[in-house]
Amino acid sequence: MIDNIHADPVEILRLLIRCPSVTPAEGGALGYLDALLSGAGFATHRVTLTAPDTPDIENLYARFGTRGPNLCFAGHTDVVPPGDPQHWRFPPFEGAIHDGLIYGRGAVDMKGGVAAFIAAGLDFARAHGNDPDHPDLPGSISFLLTGDEEGPAINGTEKLLRWLADRDERLDHCVLGEPSSRAALGDMVKIGRRGSLSCTLTVHGKQGHVGYPHLADNPIPGLITLLGALIAEPLDGGNAHFQASNLEIVSVDVGNPAFNVIPAQAQGRFNIRFNDLWTPQTLQAEIERRLNRAAGNSVRWSAAFEFRSSDSFLTAPGAFVDLVVASIAETTGQTPELSTTGGTSDARFIKDHCPVIEFGLVGTTMHAVDESTPIAQVQALTGVYAGIIARYFAEFGRR
Amino acid sequence: MIDNIHADPVEILRLLIRCPSVTPAEGGALGYLDALLSGAGFATHRVTLTAPDTPDIENLYARFGTRGPNLCFAGHTDVVPPGDPQHWRFPPFEGAIHDGLIYGRGAVDMKGGVAAFIAAGLDFARAHGNDPDHPDLPGSISFLLTGDEEGPAINGTEKLLRWLADRDERLDHCVLGEPSSRAALGDMVKIGRRGSLSCTLTVHGKQGHVGYPHLADNPIPGLITLLGALIAEPLDGGNAHFQASNLEIVSVDVGNPAFNVIPAQAQGRFNIRFNDLWTPQTLQAEIERRLNRAAGNSVRWSAAFEFRSSDSFLTAPGAFVDLVVASIAETTGQTPELSTTGGTSDARFIKDHCPVIEFGLVGTTMHAVDESTPIAQVQALTGVYAGIIARYFAEFGRR
Repeated sequence: MIDNIHADPVEILRLLIRCPSVTPAEGGALGYLDALLSGAGFATHRVTLTAPDTPDIENLYARFGTRGPNLCFAGHTDVVPPGDPQHWRFPPFEGAIHDGLIYGRGAVDMKGGVAAFIAAGLDFARAHGNDPDHPDLPGSISFLLTGDEEGPAINGTEKLLRWLADRDERLDHCVLGEPSSRAALGDMVKIGRRGSLSCTLTVHGKQGHVGYPHLADNPIPGLITLLGALIAEPLDGGNAHFQASNLEIVSVDVGNPAFNVIPAQAQGRFNIRFNDLWTPQTLQAEIERRLNRAAGNSVRWSAAFEFRSSDSFLTAPGAFVDLVVASIAETTGQTPELSTTGGTSDARFIKDHCPVIEFGLVGTTMHAVDESTPIAQVQALTGVYAGIIARYFAEFGRR
Repeated sequence: MIDNIHADPVEILRLLIRCPSVTPAEGGALGYLDALLSGAGFATHRVTLTAPDTPDIENLYARFGTRGPNLCFAGHTDVVPPGDPQHWRFPPFEGAIHDGLIYGRGAVDMKGGVAAFIAAGLDFARAHGNDPDHPDLPGSISFLLTGDEEGPAINGTEKLLRWLADRDERLDHCVLGEPSSRAALGDMVKIGRRGSLSCTLTVHGKQGHVGYPHLADNPIPGLITLLGALIAEPLDGGNAHFQASNLEIVSVDVGNPAFNVIPAQAQGRFNIRFNDLWTPQTLQAEIERRLNRAAGNSVRWSAAFEFRSSDSFLTAPGAFVDLVVASIAETTGQTPELSTTGGTSDARFIKDHCPVIEFGLVGTTMHAVDESTPIAQVQALTGVYAGIIARYFAEFGRR
């Protein structure tokens, strides 16, 4: 019987890769998933979000079932640009399969993860007759899909979550399908992320001629002093779940082409990835304390902290983390490391609504030329997600 | 008798200001002086100098007399651009006289000085019947005039001096008419200049993501360490005739707009104004020693020293300096400070050929809107130059 055939995540991935959804273009990806899911009994919502000076972005929310608990899988269908297609072994928007690998922009980040959880969700729906009011349903499965993760991320997950909250749509737990595995599928899940705080530091001086330095006030030695003070001592030593917080100076800029001119000002830019020993507010206060102490009365400075900082978060080990770990171990044989390392992701927005963990493919080729993933890994990931669904409802579902 | 009337430096200055000789344009200035001087018995040479990737530049050498010693007055007729003429009280190329001041681009830097020494030289020639073979001539007066002092200075004084040397034309002493006075005419002469050495320092790292600093190598902390080491200790304490040498960091540059990227390299640019305790070679060795010591094995750096460094020089106090000082005191009542301060000038080229000092107008308005000088000061400067000529030949001339 055709109903017993599992949904094919590799075919879904291939069709997704063929949608050229470079941020901010929808590229047909969300339209394809909308059709696929509504045909399987999901209630779907296409949400176009807008803001001044940013492109309009399409997003998709789809839910199977009307009762709680609602287990949500989150992800994005937008991809980074492929660069020159001539540099690729296979066209970046073709989805070529060769030697057991599927090639294409987004194969890993993260159309592969999307295809896997969509396939697992379709199987769950089919097992309930594609009937969202099926009496045996233990809860709901939902998909939160954005087209603005690789771009400014203004008209994406953050706003879509608020759109849902405004409609009293509740998410109980979330799995974000970003490529979290390091070398082998299942070797790492992300149970939290460090926060991020960025700042532009300006030291103010007085322009003049290098032949007459006493008539000028060179801001560069002051900048060196202040930046040196910021990196002289570590911010903390980390804790059980987090690395030490880290400050990186990412740029210093004057832009003076003339060797005979002392410039009027100098800038340094830095970013801090911080653990849960800090909030953006306490960290900003510490940075200002260090700057004040190093500047004394001799360096005039100002610091502009970026508006869009993000807090750290931790989904503490417990029943939800345990069932994800058990599902991974069952399918892959790996006991994943519980990590909070790496860059930011949309989990920074989701954690304000429900517990979230991140699990997905091995990320090695993400954003690179010849981005690709073994098709066996996409199939195994589908198995992990199916296992998470089963264990989740066994643990939290309605009886 | 008309022959007893002194040449009028203010009229010469006014006509020079009316020549729009913004570098590299000759603007008629050298043509006017050529006609004026050849009419008074000077042998003149118009020399057009060229080099790849630079504009052709006109220069003028004129000499009255064929015997030595040859006292040379040096200067330039090119000027910096006036900016928006609307911002000027009087048109910048008109030479308007108002309330005892003459206005115009170059009035101070340095058509005023040129007009004064041309007028003094014309008086000297007239006193000898405008006859360069006059039997009473105690030597020669010459003028070395370039149109490339405010520009790249490649097709100007330096090459013109070589052109003269190739023709066995000997200069015995030189007065450069740049505006050397600070607040009152005669308060300062320049008897030397510091040298100048410029360098671009690059620290090499490895690009990466701020979330994964262990996979990258941030070059900015290394740059901070190296630049800090360069300015930590003074280069020297100066000596009797020179200020302490001074290193100014004029720029630091990475140009990374992304807060989440660790850059691959970082640059610092610095310039050193150094006294006669150093040569460019010994100074470069000291800089490299400091960089090596600060870098240890942990910072990878390279340093590109600019090809066009200039050595320091000193025209030591003695008979030539004394007669200049005496002429200044006689006309202005000032006892000038013997200084080696300030920026570079064409004296850095002349000192390779003969002793040179710099004396000229008060420089306050040079390069500024409403550049202007009191006409009385131009007349007094002409008197100083005439006094220098008289004392020079009394001291060094043929009897």
